[in-house]
Amino acid sequence: MSDSAKTVDGWTHNERPANLHRRFAFNDYAGTRNFLDRLAELSKETGFYPDISFGKTYANVTIHAGDTKTLTAADFEFARRVNTLLPAGGG
Amino acid sequence: MSDSAKTVDGWTHNERPANLHRRFAFNDYAGTRNFLDRLAELSKETGFYPDISFGKTYANVTIHAGDTKTLTAADFEFARRVNTLLPAGGG
Repeated sequence: MSDSAKTVDGWTHNERPANLHRRFAFNDYAGTRNFLDRLAELSKETGFYPDISFGKTYANVTIHAGDTKTLTAADFEFARRVNTLLPAGGG
Repeated sequence: MSDSAKTVDGWTHNERPANLHRRFAFNDYAGTRNFLDRLAELSKETGFYPDISFGKTYANVTIHAGDTKTLTAADFEFARRVNTLLPAGGG
């Protein structure tokens, strides 16, 4: 675990209610769909199902704290893995 | 076109801003994914890209009026077609 375990590049860490949020922008619908498909695979693998809202060229991803109302190391790790789904050079 | 061209089964017709909205509930993530995949195909076919928010077992679909700020017959028709994506017997 890094020194900054409570931050993830590009994500906003909100409190009350505790969540991690990031908006991803894409050049076209194909880019958005590709990202969402990869994210669906990651959800199936990890059992994490963030809230997602999207339109033609964007996707907002919100990872809510579970019943403990506190974000866990696993939540932050999931956010980091979402970042790796982006194509090289950004969305 | 039916007598009730400005209504679509299950959808809420909001004004200011004008939009059509429906929440779809599913028994599991597979049901949600199946619906979203069908909706993506419909979007590619029609060129309509509604705003969608979803979690593990639900999807909210919002069809916003375009630049005219008034919903068109095509918007209502798209909503009707979204309804046909549901498995028989509901989501």
